[in-house]
Amino acid sequence: MKNLGRHILAEIYDCDPTILNNSGLIEEILVKAALEAGAEVREVAFHKFSPQGVSGVVIISESHLTIHTWPELGYAAVDVFTCGDRVNPWDACNYISKGLCAKHMDATEVKRGLFDMPVKAINF
Amino acid sequence: MKNLGRHILAEIYDCDPTILNNSGLIEEILVKAALEAGAEVREVAFHKFSPQGVSGVVIISESHLTIHTWPELGYAAVDVFTCGDRVNPWDACNYISKGLCAKHMDATEVKRGLFDMPVKAINF
Repeated sequence: MKNLGRHILAEIYDCDPTILNNSGLIEEILVKAALEAGAEVREVAFHKFSPQGVSGVVIISESHLTIHTWPELGYAAVDVFTCGDRVNPWDACNYISKGLCAKHMDATEVKRGLFDMPVKAINF
Repeated sequence: MKNLGRHILAEIYDCDPTILNNSGLIEEILVKAALEAGAEVREVAFHKFSPQGVSGVVIISESHLTIHTWPELGYAAVDVFTCGDRVNPWDACNYISKGLCAKHMDATEVKRGLFDMPVKAINF
């Protein structure tokens, strides 16, 4: 089986709560994570919740990065989904974990888009 | 262990390629899926690739829905991530699969944000 993409689901604990509640900084960390991994940023959308918490996404040519933060728990749910062989999603994931000053991360990689035959998609 | 969220990773195969390449329609399907499931839409960002394919996200108060489509393969990678007990992510996922006229879906639910103690986050 050949997979189109790699998707990291990261549970990032014991982060700096001040960072987790700073929407502008979270956006900057995610965009820089995408760029550091060599991805091409296409769209960005972030939302600051009241009284706290940030949700955001960076759509890249290679798929996406998302984050949801719970400052009150020091926790962030992060996804990094990349297609193709050019970008390593772990580079972006580790950059984000470092940016959040996290003390602990549990992350799993899931293969996405499984096909029996090797396939070459043309949109990345 | 108590989890903050539920995340469905759906591999949706044998979809209608015309729908998969229609950015406006894909956006409509994802937004309606969120609303049908009872979620509150906060931000929307979609991107149409050349020569084909669509990537998009709907940020909801309860987390997010994302999609990446490969019309040439009849395939879509869909994620529905919801927090709290009010919204059932499977409702949104099944709505999307139906909207894409899919013949086959492989989907898995992953628990996100595991904590030893029951927690009550306050931002949803």
